Amino acid sequence: MEGHVPEPTFTLEGWHVLHDFRHLDFGAWLGAPQEERLAAWEELKAILAEWRAVEAEGKGSYGVYQVVTAKADLLFLNLRESLDALLAVEERLNKSRFARYLRPAYGFYSVVELGSQTGPLDPEAPYVKPRLTPRVPKGGYVCFYPMNKRRQGQDNWYMLPARERASLMKAHGETGRKYQGKVMQVISGAQGLDDWEWGVDLFSEDPIQFKKIVYEMRFDEVSARFGEFGPFYVGRYLPEEALARYLEVG
Amino acid sequence: MEGHVPEPTFTLEGWHVLHDFRHLDFGAWLGAPQEERLAAWEELKAILAEWRAVEAEGKGSYGVYQVVTAKADLLFLNLRESLDALLAVEERLNKSRFARYLRPAYGFYSVVELGSQTGPLDPEAPYVKPRLTPRVPKGGYVCFYPMNKRRQGQDNWYMLPARERASLMKAHGETGRKYQGKVMQVISGAQGLDDWEWGVDLFSEDPIQFKKIVYEMRFDEVSARFGEFGPFYVGRYLPEEALARYLEVG
Amino acid sequence: MEGHVPEPTFTLEGWHVLHDFRHLDFGAWLGAPQEERLAAWEELKAILAEWRAVEAEGKGSYGVYQVVTAKADLLFLNLRESLDALLAVEERLNKSRFARYLRPAYGFYSVVELGSQTGPLDPEAPYVKPRLTPRVPKGGYVCFYPMNKRRQGQDNWYMLPARERASLMKAHGETGRKYQGKVMQVISGAQGLDDWEWGVDLFSEDPIQFKKIVYEMRFDEVSARFGEFGPFYVGRYLPEEALARYLEVG
Amino acid sequence: MEGHVPEPTFTLEGWHVLHDFRHLDFGAWLGAPQEERLAAWEELKAILAEWRAVEAEGKGSYGVYQVVTAKADLLFLNLRESLDALLAVEERLNKSRFARYLRPAYGFYSVVELGSQTGPLDPEAPYVKPRLTPRVPKGGYVCFYPMNKRRQGQDNWYMLPARERASLMKAHGETGRKYQGKVMQVISGAQGLDDWEWGVDLFSEDPIQFKKIVYEMRFDEVSARFGEFGPFYVGRYLPEEALARYLEVG
Amino acid sequence: MEGHVPEPTFTLEGWHVLHDFRHLDFGAWLGAPQEERLAAWEELKAILAEWRAVEAEGKGSYGVYQVVTAKADLLFLNLRESLDALLAVEERLNKSRFARYLRPAYGFYSVVELGSQTGPLDPEAPYVKPRLTPRVPKGGYVCFYPMNKRRQGQDNWYMLPARERASLMKAHGETGRKYQGKVMQVISGAQGLDDWEWGVDLFSEDPIQFKKIVYEMRFDEVSARFGEFGPFYVGRYLPEEALARYLEVG
Repeated sequence: MEGHVPEPTFTLEGWHVLHDFRHLDFGAWLGAPQEERLAAWEELKAILAEWRAVEAEGKGSYGVYQVVTAKADLLFLNLRESLDALLAVEERLNKSRFARYLRPAYGFYSVVELGSQTGPLDPEAPYVKPRLTPRVPKGGYVCFYPMNKRRQGQDNWYMLPARERASLMKAHGETGRKYQGKVMQVISGAQGLDDWEWGVDLFSEDPIQFKKIVYEMRFDEVSARFGEFGPFYVGRYLPEEALARYLEVG
Repeated sequence: MEGHVPEPTFTLEGWHVLHDFRHLDFGAWLGAPQEERLAAWEELKAILAEWRAVEAEGKGSYGVYQVVTAKADLLFLNLRESLDALLAVEERLNKSRFARYLRPAYGFYSVVELGSQTGPLDPEAPYVKPRLTPRVPKGGYVCFYPMNKRRQGQDNWYMLPARERASLMKAHGETGRKYQGKVMQVISGAQGLDDWEWGVDLFSEDPIQFKKIVYEMRFDEVSARFGEFGPFYVGRYLPEEALARYLEVG
Repeated sequence: MEGHVPEPTFTLEGWHVLHDFRHLDFGAWLGAPQEERLAAWEELKAILAEWRAVEAEGKGSYGVYQVVTAKADLLFLNLRESLDALLAVEERLNKSRFARYLRPAYGFYSVVELGSQTGPLDPEAPYVKPRLTPRVPKGGYVCFYPMNKRRQGQDNWYMLPARERASLMKAHGETGRKYQGKVMQVISGAQGLDDWEWGVDLFSEDPIQFKKIVYEMRFDEVSARFGEFGPFYVGRYLPEEALARYLEVG
Repeated sequence: MEGHVPEPTFTLEGWHVLHDFRHLDFGAWLGAPQEERLAAWEELKAILAEWRAVEAEGKGSYGVYQVVTAKADLLFLNLRESLDALLAVEERLNKSRFARYLRPAYGFYSVVELGSQTGPLDPEAPYVKPRLTPRVPKGGYVCFYPMNKRRQGQDNWYMLPARERASLMKAHGETGRKYQGKVMQVISGAQGLDDWEWGVDLFSEDPIQFKKIVYEMRFDEVSARFGEFGPFYVGRYLPEEALARYLEVG
Repeated sequence: MEGHVPEPTFTLEGWHVLHDFRHLDFGAWLGAPQEERLAAWEELKAILAEWRAVEAEGKGSYGVYQVVTAKADLLFLNLRESLDALLAVEERLNKSRFARYLRPAYGFYSVVELGSQTGPLDPEAPYVKPRLTPRVPKGGYVCFYPMNKRRQGQDNWYMLPARERASLMKAHGETGRKYQGKVMQVISGAQGLDDWEWGVDLFSEDPIQFKKIVYEMRFDEVSARFGEFGPFYVGRYLPEEALARYLEVG
């Protein structure tokens, strides 16, 4: 039909995702009275325990990261079954004592998605459900970045025939598969939800793999011609005891 | 005529709209003396009562939202019959006690508009008036984003023949109609009023619908080639009692 | 001549213009002791009286506006015979007590200009002088925005033959003339003076006219292909007694 | 040679230049105790005396300016024989008492340069040396802006044949020469030193000349097709006694 | 293969790099009590001693620089064997007393890389290892800037045949070699790690060489057509005794 290209993929939505990057005011935190810091830490531990319980119930997942460079100090990553649940997470953290020592650095709201080029997906299929409700690895490193598909002159993703988009995504998927076992990817859609169209989370035991996969993928035509990339955030997973050491309350 | 394309649509203007996004300083607010917070809350309730009265008189509408991510904490959305009325709303809020705990996050001034490709609209027609003076749903979620029509090389909306613009908008409208009953749209024009040409408000009971409609529409040629999108803000409607809980004055 | 296009217009310069947008710290202002606020107000009234006197002498003009959205709260608009006079205006305001409650929001320095495509203008002609030294209306609304002429690929204003530029500007002027009596335009040039090439002030009794004229003009080829627009600021004129009410010193 | 275009100009480097734009906190400054302000002023006068001495020795030059609009309040412009000397200037100012009332607004580091399209320049030639070590006029106005040469599609300066670049620069120089006696230009290169490729300083007794020369030059093909312009800063030269009045210590 | 271009270079990764640019609050620092400043300095000296020890062990390198212009005051440059080691460096600095007088200015995380167009490199080869683990010169000046390879219309680096990329890089390398002995280059990759694709560090005894090499390289086709450059930071190496003088604790 004139002026309209049919929807190219069959898309399923999974968990809602909140990336909540924060600056820590080290001077104020380390300078606060010991009892104040311990009280803030007890409350933060209670929050972490709540998040763990949600994960144990299969209703979400979470991770806390130490982020490199001055872009941010900490990332609180949460996945939940609904926006309401994410709003509650954000509100709980904002109202905590510890939050008085934090300033927002960057945030991103998106929803895990799975697309198929060839036909509708069965949301209950064994290879589908886990990918819509991914568990954040409890260790290693994270790389997060938002991205768009370009719409510029001849390089307009949304004007391509569906067949061409499918073929480009297939080649891209093959590059991704080369990193299976080394890099876990979670793709979330943010159209209508945040300023970029997608969010990408890469998880790995080795941050050099983030460099290798992103570099190699940039030569995929779909990235070379159509990928527009936002800021990249890299962090190391902080288990509770490492977080305690980081906050000097351990 | 050389150098001039006749106005492509017959446009009617309705209510003036102010999107007023704010950050809340949680630490200062929760740390303020109880009597101070209660006094601020009483004043805020009085403001909400005024807005409700305006809505009851049919002279405007309003909604308060809890916004996700650090972009903003609260959205005060107001529609009124005039810019003067909006300026009064903004001034009243700015002068309130509660505003001492708020910082501006983003604002947008626009005017609800309705366009026809085929001929002048009758402002008193039964399907016209309600769309020019829309009532904000008292529940669910909002998605707000500003946008432009692109003027870039071959993709210059304002250089297209009127007929082509009309045909592209028609196809776009058809995509929108697929979401009837799921997503309510309010389009407001901001040319000459704010930095983007239009503001779009989507209202839905399910935030996933924001993702679906924006994604599907992006494949409409009018979006793919001509849509330039600003930041996206998503929030949940807060009735007064939910706002009281959020502010811990309930 | 190779590499050079002759100057396309005969341009006359008039008054120097300073747009000085400010945020008002409502909390600090309303929380200041009454005598402090009254003293600040007395000084501000003296400044306004000076500006009025300059206007009465025909050596400049001014207006104070309440600006909508969080972009700014107040606009102090001043026109003078020289940059020195504007620097004195800015310094006087910056050193006033009231300025302790203000923060800069945006500023723009430009010079009123009048161009002719067909031949040199007589600066003393009856239709020329008033347009070079315009008096700010003492009521209604203002819309200010800066703009550039595009220089991008095929859409490079400064590479067009003078004849084509003249014809495009003529068509644009015709659109403007349709709004005569509804919208007063003041064009000031800022090349070599500020970050955008021109500043545009629209004055009207009805802010909807800003929307209508800017929308209609965008279909003029000169805007569609060559106009690049900066931020738009809209405000309502504040006579002294309205300013007193706004500042709660009335 | 494939992939390489020979260096197009013979370039000589002169003095190192620091543009140091600052905001002045008027409230804090005017509110400071008289003795504090006088002590800060004595120290600032000592700094100015040092700069004057350097200029007298022929080892540099300087100027202090009152800048229009909220972009900045003051510009400290210094030229020296080395980066080390500029770093010392910056450190001296940063450590002064007066600096406690200043905030950075913008800074730019570059090196005066002189280029020839036709052959190597003799650095000791009488028309060369003064242009590499220019003396800042002790009066009038300054206009500073950084700029790039565009590298975009067909408009890629660095891909042009040297002959074409030379011819475009020649035409541009002719426009400049029309303003001889009215506008003094200092061009400094910033490739490898700051975010833009060049800095341009215009000095004139009449700020309208900044508008006229920049406007006329924009029609030169080299500007129209290849010029990318950063922010423009305009200020009035402040001799010491005017600076004393500005700071209310006179 | 459709949609995919094979990896163009054989890339080896070396040390992880953190550029940590900071503002110094001169007023607060110089105004702090002498004992406070000396205690902060003792701790900072201990940190520098740790960095020196790491360098002596061959497990990393470092440099501290005084940065010109208000972009930053200090650069702490560190190279280490792992991201974990860099996170420890950053955390140690953030928790130090001195950090209370610092604010973040800019940061960049990347990994030293060495690429070959012709075949796999031997990581133990005598000319390879030192380039992957470069020692920061203990004197002179640094120039740091991040950059991308352009992907825009016809100028899309990642869509070029590998042979063309190799030929363009070879010509570029030849320009670089002309500066051997004058400028030392360290290239680090940041794809998947930070917002730009590469970081470039130039080290020289003469800052004019930064201007010359960057200017000359810009005429290489690979820069002219494909280089997109971020901000440039220039600083002078501060040995410990110079840092002591800078901080007025010497």
